[in-house]
Order: sequence, then C-alpha cells, then structure tokens
Amino acid sequence: MTPPGYHMDQEIRSQPAMFAALLSDAGWADDLSRHLVRRQPRFVLFAARGTSDHAALYGKYLAEVELGLPAGLVSPSTATVYRAAARMDGVLFVAVSQSGASPDLVHALTAARNGGATTVALTNDAGSALAQAAEFSVDLRAGEEIAVAATKTYTAELLALYLMFTALSATRDNEGLSQVHEAAERTLIESERIDEAAQRYRDATHLVVTARGYSSPTAGEAALKLIETCRLPALAYSAADLLHGPLAIVDVGTPVMAVVTAGAASDAMRPVLDRLTELQADVLLVGPLAGLPVYTDGITEPLHPILQILPLQQLALRLALARGHDPDRPRNLSKVTRTR
Amino acid sequence: MTPPGYHMDQEIRSQPAMFAALLSDAGWADDLSRHLVRRQPRFVLFAARGTSDHAALYGKYLAEVELGLPAGLVSPSTATVYRAAARMDGVLFVAVSQSGASPDLVHALTAARNGGATTVALTNDAGSALAQAAEFSVDLRAGEEIAVAATKTYTAELLALYLMFTALSATRDNEGLSQVHEAAERTLIESERIDEAAQRYRDATHLVVTARGYSSPTAGEAALKLIETCRLPALAYSAADLLHGPLAIVDVGTPVMAVVTAGAASDAMRPVLDRLTELQADVLLVGPLAGLPVYTDGITEPLHPILQILPLQQLALRLALARGHDPDRPRNLSKVTRTR
Repeated sequence: MTPPGYHMDQEIRSQPAMFAALLSDAGWADDLSRHLVRRQPRFVLFAARGTSDHAALYGKYLAEVELGLPAGLVSPSTATVYRAAARMDGVLFVAVSQSGASPDLVHALTAARNGGATTVALTNDAGSALAQAAEFSVDLRAGEEIAVAATKTYTAELLALYLMFTALSATRDNEGLSQVHEAAERTLIESERIDEAAQRYRDATHLVVTARGYSSPTAGEAALKLIETCRLPALAYSAADLLHGPLAIVDVGTPVMAVVTAGAASDAMRPVLDRLTELQADVLLVGPLAGLPVYTDGITEPLHPILQILPLQQLALRLALARGHDPDRPRNLSKVTRTR
Repeated sequence: MTPPGYHMDQEIRSQPAMFAALLSDAGWADDLSRHLVRRQPRFVLFAARGTSDHAALYGKYLAEVELGLPAGLVSPSTATVYRAAARMDGVLFVAVSQSGASPDLVHALTAARNGGATTVALTNDAGSALAQAAEFSVDLRAGEEIAVAATKTYTAELLALYLMFTALSATRDNEGLSQVHEAAERTLIESERIDEAAQRYRDATHLVVTARGYSSPTAGEAALKLIETCRLPALAYSAADLLHGPLAIVDVGTPVMAVVTAGAASDAMRPVLDRLTELQADVLLVGPLAGLPVYTDGITEPLHPILQILPLQQLALRLALARGHDPDRPRNLSKVTRTR
C-alpha cells in the first residue's frame, strides 16, 4: 500500500522531466505535419472524453488561431448512437485519449476515416484500439499513469498537440519550448502557496473556475480534477460565458479561481475580474505574479496552458488530502472508462 | 410591481401558443434552405453564448445527424481576442442570440463572413446588430422576453433550427410538428409533479443534470436555469462524460436529474442510470412516463428537446420561489450581456 495521493504526487512531479524528454525527440511532429499538410485539410474535428476533452479544446484553439482552420469538437454519440455518416472529405479528425480504449472514440474515428477524413490518434498506448484504427498515431510516451485522475497524460497531450499544430508554422515558439522544462520546475516548487490555498478551500461547498481563450481548457481541467479528487462541485466557465448566467451563483465569499495570463486573453478577463471584485467573491488568481504563481516569462501564450494546470493539479491533490480523501482512488471511478 | 416569477411564468406558459404561431408561418425555412443548399456547405459552425449556446449544441446535432455535415461550436474569442482569420469558404456559420446585441458574436460572424462563410443569424430582434451583420437573418418572433432567464426564446431557437435544418429533408417529422403544440400543453399541465420536485430539492446544495445525444442540450439548459434562478450549483454532463470523472461527486442521496427519451439515446443512458442506482443517488427521471413527465407520443426524437425543457423551466421557477428568490430578477445578471 502506498500513502494517499502517492501516485498522483509522483506523476505531477514527473512532468518537467517528461517535457524535456518529449522535446528532445520531437521529430515525429515535423514528419506528421508534412503528411497532414499534403492532405490540405479544410476543417479540424477533435474527439475526446473527460480530461482529454480539455486537451481537445486546447487543440481547437491551436487549429483556429495558429492554422486559421475552422474546428469543432465532435459529439461521439452522433456516430455511435445515431449512426450518422458524415461527409468527411477535407476533414482532419484528431482523437485524443490516454488509454485509447473507449469504444465510442474508436467508432467515431473509424466512421470519420470511412467518410474520407484524415485521422490521427494521440494516445498513451501505441497498441490501443484507437491507435490501431487511425491512419496516423502519436504515442504520448508519458509513461504508465497509475493515479485515476490524469495529470501527466494531460500535459503530454497538450504538448503533443502544440508540436503537431505548429511544426511547420512560423509562430512556433522554439525559445519558449526550450524554457518549458525549467518553468514547470519553478512553478511546481511553490508548495507553500498550494498549502495556503488548500486550507482556504478546505470547507468550500462549491467552487467556480474561470479563464478565457487559450486558458479556457485550464479552467475545465482544473474543475474536473477538483471534482474527481475532492468530490467538490466545481463549475468551469469561460469568462465570457460566466457573465451570461452562471454569475448568479457568485455571492460574497464564493470561491472563484481565475486563470490569468500575460497574453491576449488577459485584457478579456478584466471585465470579469472587476465584476467578481464588486460581488466580493473570494478570488484566487492563477498566473504570473498571482496568488498561485505560474512562471511563463519569455514563453508565449499558446504554451501557457501546459504550465497553468500544474499548481491546480497540486491544489486538487492537497485539497483532497485536507478533506480526508485519497486522490489516487477517486470515488466511483476507474482508470479506463469504456463508453459507447 | 409584479409578483416574483410573474414574467417567467407567463413566458413559460406562452410557449405552446408560440409554437403554433411559428409553425403556421414557417415558409421562411424552405426559402432559406434553398439558398443555403445552393452554397453547398461542407461544414457548419455555430456561435452563441449562454442559453443560446445550448440551442447551438442542438443545432450541431441536427447538422451532424440530419444533414451528415461535420459541425462545431465556435469559440468567439478566437476572432475577438486573437484576431485570427480563418479560411471560411465552404462554411455555413450560424449565430444564435436572443438579443443579437453581444459584440463578440457580431465580430465573430463578421469575421466569418469576410472569410467566405455563408452567414445566418437567428435572433429575437430583427433590427439587432447581429441580424444586420448576417447575410441571412431569421426572426424568432417569440415576442419580447422580459424575465432575465430565457425560456420562450430558447424553445423558439430550437424550433427555428429544426425547421431550418430539416426544410428540405425527407426526415422532417411533419406529423410530429403538428403535435408539438398539444404535447407542450399536456407537458406544462403537470404542476403537481413540479411542486413535488421543487419540495424535494428545496434544500439541495448542488444538483447534477445528465442526458445524452439530442437531449444533451436539455441537460445544459436545465442546469443554467437552476443556476440563474435558484443560485444552485448545477452541473450538466452528457451521460458519457459523467462516467469519465464527474461521477466522483455523486454520493448516496445526491440529486441527479436524468433526461430520458424513447429514442436512440435511451439505450445509451442505461449504463449511467444503472450506475446511479448502484450509488443510491436521488434520481429524478425527466421524459415519457417519468417522474417529470414529457409527452412525446408520436413525435420523433429530434423534436423532443423542445418539449423536455418545459417541465425543467417550471421546476427552476418553482424551486426559486421555494428557496425565496425572485426568478424574474436573478442575482448579478441583466437581460442583455455584452461580452467582447
């Protein structure tokens, strides 16, 4: 028996070295990109569930902003429940899954491939059904993930998507990539701040997490970690969507974590932060110079999500322990979920 | 001064007659569809916020299942925050908004139109900026909506999307459409069941709403109504996503509303319902013959969301009153939200 949270802690801490290893052998992304560019995709579709769905949302921003291609997140049930066959020529279909084992994703990817899409699977198991079903398969090489709550496979998915979508792009931040390893180490070292935040939220009954643009997937993934490990109802909204209704649950003292960046999304967060201050919410900022610091100096915004999630993974771990739960064994869940 | 919830109640009750009126004058959908088909769209993109975002998700299912076209929900910030210009030829871009006033939607639609997309705006204000910016504009004709929480404009959006996407399709359920008015009246009449449910959830600290396939937008919209009017943290998940993590917040007695149908999504809900029963969650079914009944006899599944939301709107209203809130005046919100 390992102590509670042992595996999740190990896996969180392994991320800086994992980034360095993945970046030292990233030639696959150039090769893959050359293949994909030849297909002249017009539209990018992502299919994923759970944590990987947040990675897919990150991929969607990359496709839209870096490649200038319209993109969408697939509802796998369209293929599995309704057996709809879509016209998929011109589509780049990217499935993202830690296990590569969920039948609905395999089915949706196969339907897309049969419909004429170029298919890519990103999985942490190169022998998985999903990897086998795709024309192109990317092995995340994150090492086996034992904790049920995904941490290192999430950031491996983000990094792989960044490499894949910027391989042939003038906007790839090579300088920033070279600093990700060290920035991740610096970000993970702030354990006092994490413990303070865990104490602050120990008796919370619910939490709101908000962000905007590239950081939106961070909000969704942070909320899912808090749900899985702390059994806390955590609601994630893009900062714009928060103003369109969900703000009604924010009262004096309501815990709200707001992910801020030094990038373009930061101005867009301003109206939301002002409103949260007016309402006297208990706001914890996550980002450069913030209450939960994220080190992103010299690194461009599209890479920030890879770093932003780190202190939030740590917070989920510590808060779960503070609330008396074992984050390695979330209630009601198993590591591989097979939905149809 | 009107009594608490007066406007929301009036607007909920006005829906059957509104459906009849909209259906008696639906020729616009045929005309619009003929225009759109000539453009030979290859992909459909939807842009919306808040309640209308759930209507957009419904539209996405229609595009994927009924038209066999890949579809996605736009992140408006891609255009507004990052100023990314996407290649939009072959794209049908549909913006959905009650007010048509939010600058980010106007900006995203304009960017799509400039990029070569065919643009359609569905709004309840034919003179709005969004309606003006689009090549094609659909007037929802739902009448002025006074309550901040959208009800009749949501179902008007669903019905308009159904008419628009099935106008030229052999799968349009004309028989079902002719029964929607009466089915809506029958569904709204079950006030005892609504009051029972409101009592049951009066002291809830959070709620989960789940559904699958075509009914997924119902779960999202029901959660948003509960958040807006009852200030309750309500979490919505597709039944498949619920199993990929969020199930950790479900404990003995956790209130879970599950939307079930007699259609294809019903088999897909089974594993989730079994799991919720095992966990002894406090499950309230919403659908035919369910605890919160929805009358859908003789009406095909794609039309069910128009009816499913009705008892959930009523529940949000009654539960808000039971908890001492005025559902017409949700905390922190105004009717028109202008995000950028």
